Amino acid sequence: MTTQAVASLQAEVNKLRHELQTLKVGGESSSLAGETLYVGQYLVERLAQLGVTKMFGVPGDFNLGFLDFVEDHPKIDWVGNCNELNAAYAADGYARVHDGKLGVLTTTFGVGELSAMNGIAGAFSEHVPVLHIVGVPSTGQQKAKPMLHHTLGDGRFDAYYKVAQEITISQATLTSKENAAAEIDRVITDCLVLARPVYLMLPTDLAYERIPSARLKTPLNTQPPENDPDVENFVLDEIVKLVDEAQNDVIILVDACAIRHGVKNEVKELYERTGYPVYAAPMGKTAVDESYERYGGIYVGSISHDAIKEKVENAKLILSIGALKSDFNTGNFTYHIPVTRTVEFHSDHTRVQFAGFPGIGMKRLLPKLTQRLQPFKEGAVGLEVGKYIPEIPKEDTDEITQTYLWPRVGKFFKSNDVIVAETGTSSFGILDIPLPAGATFLSQILWGSIGWTVGSTLGAAYAAQDRGLGRTILFIGDGSLQLTVQELSVMIHRGLKPIIFVLNNSGYTIERYLHGMDRKYNDINNWRWTKLLETFGGEEGKTVKSYQVRTKQELSDLLDDQTFDSAEVIQLVEMIMPQKDAPRALKVQAELSGKSNRYAAEILTETVRLK
Amino acid sequence: MTTQAVASLQAEVNKLRHELQTLKVGGESSSLAGETLYVGQYLVERLAQLGVTKMFGVPGDFNLGFLDFVEDHPKIDWVGNCNELNAAYAADGYARVHDGKLGVLTTTFGVGELSAMNGIAGAFSEHVPVLHIVGVPSTGQQKAKPMLHHTLGDGRFDAYYKVAQEITISQATLTSKENAAAEIDRVITDCLVLARPVYLMLPTDLAYERIPSARLKTPLNTQPPENDPDVENFVLDEIVKLVDEAQNDVIILVDACAIRHGVKNEVKELYERTGYPVYAAPMGKTAVDESYERYGGIYVGSISHDAIKEKVENAKLILSIGALKSDFNTGNFTYHIPVTRTVEFHSDHTRVQFAGFPGIGMKRLLPKLTQRLQPFKEGAVGLEVGKYIPEIPKEDTDEITQTYLWPRVGKFFKSNDVIVAETGTSSFGILDIPLPAGATFLSQILWGSIGWTVGSTLGAAYAAQDRGLGRTILFIGDGSLQLTVQELSVMIHRGLKPIIFVLNNSGYTIERYLHGMDRKYNDINNWRWTKLLETFGGEEGKTVKSYQVRTKQELSDLLDDQTFDSAEVIQLVEMIMPQKDAPRALKVQAELSGKSNRYAAEILTETVRLK
Repeated sequence: MTTQAVASLQAEVNKLRHELQTLKVGGESSSLAGETLYVGQYLVERLAQLGVTKMFGVPGDFNLGFLDFVEDHPKIDWVGNCNELNAAYAADGYARVHDGKLGVLTTTFGVGELSAMNGIAGAFSEHVPVLHIVGVPSTGQQKAKPMLHHTLGDGRFDAYYKVAQEITISQATLTSKENAAAEIDRVITDCLVLARPVYLMLPTDLAYERIPSARLKTPLNTQPPENDPDVENFVLDEIVKLVDEAQNDVIILVDACAIRHGVKNEVKELYERTGYPVYAAPMGKTAVDESYERYGGIYVGSISHDAIKEKVENAKLILSIGALKSDFNTGNFTYHIPVTRTVEFHSDHTRVQFAGFPGIGMKRLLPKLTQRLQPFKEGAVGLEVGKYIPEIPKEDTDEITQTYLWPRVGKFFKSNDVIVAETGTSSFGILDIPLPAGATFLSQILWGSIGWTVGSTLGAAYAAQDRGLGRTILFIGDGSLQLTVQELSVMIHRGLKPIIFVLNNSGYTIERYLHGMDRKYNDINNWRWTKLLETFGGEEGKTVKSYQVRTKQELSDLLDDQTFDSAEVIQLVEMIMPQKDAPRALKVQAELSGKSNRYAAEILTETVRLK
Repeated sequence: MTTQAVASLQAEVNKLRHELQTLKVGGESSSLAGETLYVGQYLVERLAQLGVTKMFGVPGDFNLGFLDFVEDHPKIDWVGNCNELNAAYAADGYARVHDGKLGVLTTTFGVGELSAMNGIAGAFSEHVPVLHIVGVPSTGQQKAKPMLHHTLGDGRFDAYYKVAQEITISQATLTSKENAAAEIDRVITDCLVLARPVYLMLPTDLAYERIPSARLKTPLNTQPPENDPDVENFVLDEIVKLVDEAQNDVIILVDACAIRHGVKNEVKELYERTGYPVYAAPMGKTAVDESYERYGGIYVGSISHDAIKEKVENAKLILSIGALKSDFNTGNFTYHIPVTRTVEFHSDHTRVQFAGFPGIGMKRLLPKLTQRLQPFKEGAVGLEVGKYIPEIPKEDTDEITQTYLWPRVGKFFKSNDVIVAETGTSSFGILDIPLPAGATFLSQILWGSIGWTVGSTLGAAYAAQDRGLGRTILFIGDGSLQLTVQELSVMIHRGLKPIIFVLNNSGYTIERYLHGMDRKYNDINNWRWTKLLETFGGEEGKTVKSYQVRTKQELSDLLDDQTFDSAEVIQLVEMIMPQKDAPRALKVQAELSGKSNRYAAEILTETVRLK
């Protein structure tokens, strides 16, 4: 019997086993009878109920038993990543594009989970719901503490849990089958309600304990709690009063948490039904449809284009939704908007000028506010909204400059594209480019971990597939791509079709602008980028396509090519670009933050002033 | 002026600047006058004094200023890695081969340091001295806590420090120039004396504070403290009594900590001058010269070859040096050696039968013991030592089997080779193969993080270069190599010449044996391995060479090839091997630990019995 025949028989066995199991627990979760199932199955079933279609991660001996349940589940697909950091990034990208669904990764005790840490911490920082399941030694071993492989060798079996406490919002160690289901439900609920990563330790033996399935009949409630009606009414009155006083000179500024805490629709209702001009912070890019006629562009403090800066900073009242005022999201803390002219809406509190209202969350508040503000529409639409649309410049050089690149690719984007920009020249360069209707923009502006976009693109491409969105398009520099490059092989193997633009500018350009323009430590090793997809297992010209462009004309021709445009296979475009060229916004930001790195006093003054 | 001309001018400026700086601080550290230098320079200077020649890491905006000092230092070379995990692995491999010197990596706040965590935790677990320098925001920013990029966004600037506390033995946050030098000295000393990783936060501004250089005149004392003479004498008497009672039936068993805590020479004196047979645990492989006539082989509990098992377990007294009794190092806790027949020597304590002697460290004790035991030599040499040398088997198949591979490559090894084996079929397969005189063996048997060997090989190759050792040879499976593959490009670019044997057996074979033999989650994507070096920037046939071998004959011919053998460029050998083949030791181990993963009760019994 051949190996393949054995494997196919084994697959059949697995399938039958799952069917049998499903029958035993009373069919699919919608019709679960009063029977039992394994804890591991309960977990997978809950995720399926919540619409999770992919689980990322790397197998390891303490999670293999659990992975059987994942592999056998008809609705969830195991995506084996090349390494755990990439898996965490993928879960993050998946959750971001999936709007309100969680991303899930499974790793193994110690070695696996710690490798994923930077990815999980990034999800914490940027408010992304990611469930990190860690397969850990059995409950007996956790008590006896033998010197197992993947331990620190000193009996501290709780060290990784303590680490996880620093970078996740909620944690659970399953220790008995009695409360396993409740604990699973608790962390998943926290993950979705709080939009932050959570940590779940699943011991090898407990995954195989049987528990009643009845609990699965009650879907998890992942909606934020109701606001206190008295406080809410008070807040609404206060806001309406301010709006009234502002005499229509009101603008809406949308930021990251509007996306992460799932109020994009509520925000849309607000700006459409009131007619107030709407702007976005960099982390809120595409929270507002950028083709909307009263969308004014990206506001990023003193880095903003003058017209936008003027409109935002001169408004009498700013309705700020989901703000996350990090350095790179605010032009290094250069918002020139006094608190007296600001109302801030957050997931769990509201701030009207200096007054804080804890517990008044925006998900419930915004629809009521929209109703109250609708009468102002007539006056609001009189407010003019400028449009900043960068033109493709005429330049003397044939080189692909940053000034040329971004407006040019702006014309290549289509409705519903998912566009991912790596921290660096890409994330800064693309800010000014309005994206088409339905586009989704991904970048990691607060956390800023280079290499993040590669795993993230994998997850994003899957979520885009689930949601029926368009192409997934990545912009990444050569330096950043080297950190996490192997994940391209998963995309190839799984038949995903992102377009990957590699900005080959010989090193870490963002860092050159921050410090050490000519330093060797900012150089990287040059690769043969157009051979990468083939080396990772693709058939060049068939299952994968690679291009190198050196001039504006070559790039432009490629972008105009219909086959390229249709993105029917994974494509990688190496763009040779000048080493020391950077987008305008990056140059200004670098100057500001370079100063603050060196001269502590300066940034302190800045920060204190803005508080 | 061309870009290159500018760069070369800049390099000249840097060089001159350093010379100027050196003059200002009064010349090299050996002749430092009573002047001042920057804190960052102090740190680099201390490392240079300790013989550190390479610093690994990834640049990031909070460490760029410090990296200027590194790049400008004439004795320390900055090795920019592709990512931080690989950098941590490299620092670990460097320290292991450098015997008593520390490995150093520098990362940036949050994103960088967390990416390195698994590597640092591995160094903790396996007792490797690694200094992790993290460039962090300025002291002013640490106090004001603005929402900087790379933060968790909630003002917790101490979160990463808390994480580091779980996986390092000693930590320091530099907060003022007054105690910066003392704090630097403290963590470096802990790193070397305790042979564990330490963590050092270096704020951007503090790196550029000036401090007196006088302290550099006093070299750091990194020797372990003296033992209490009364206790030490008591212990020596006790041991001699036991040796006497054992009537020459004594063996020496050497393990990991003999290497990590720098007592290889003391151990050698002991076994050579007493004549007792000497064995090693897997983690102690090459602590004893394996060509030594009275070296008996590797003891690994019930997984050992019968002859070795019998000799070790039947000895009347076992002098156990630097034991680290992890599951994979002991045949899943199957040492059949009662405590009453054991004396254990550790870095900071000694155990004679059931009696513990805290504070009595082996570095000081062993030389005295050797003196006391020398008189027994005449009787000791009568004890016969078996030699287990696996023969190259005659098999029906042409395929490269595990049974064939390891004895065959055993004949390829030469004196002073550095041999690195990845966790999996490699680490288990190579155990039985005696390595030549002066060979150094590296594996991560306790921590067992797959992918570790790639970064580790980079560090090992550098340390081998410093020490004038032979070739660096890596054995790694296709699954493991995918985790950390990009680091090969650094080897290529820096002109290192390791030989990399890739065991292409289509997936995670070690895991197949643990659980899920035919599961899809144990499959990986196949790559074109022989194109890898070229893609990463090598010139195939010139600066790099790649081979694919499918049969025993092809492999054997390659190994016999003189050009290949001389390893004048980096070489990668893809060996196509049967998917489900595994070395004997791995099969037994997997059976034992697969059981314990599933049935907690069983391992508990085992563990309790051995305590």
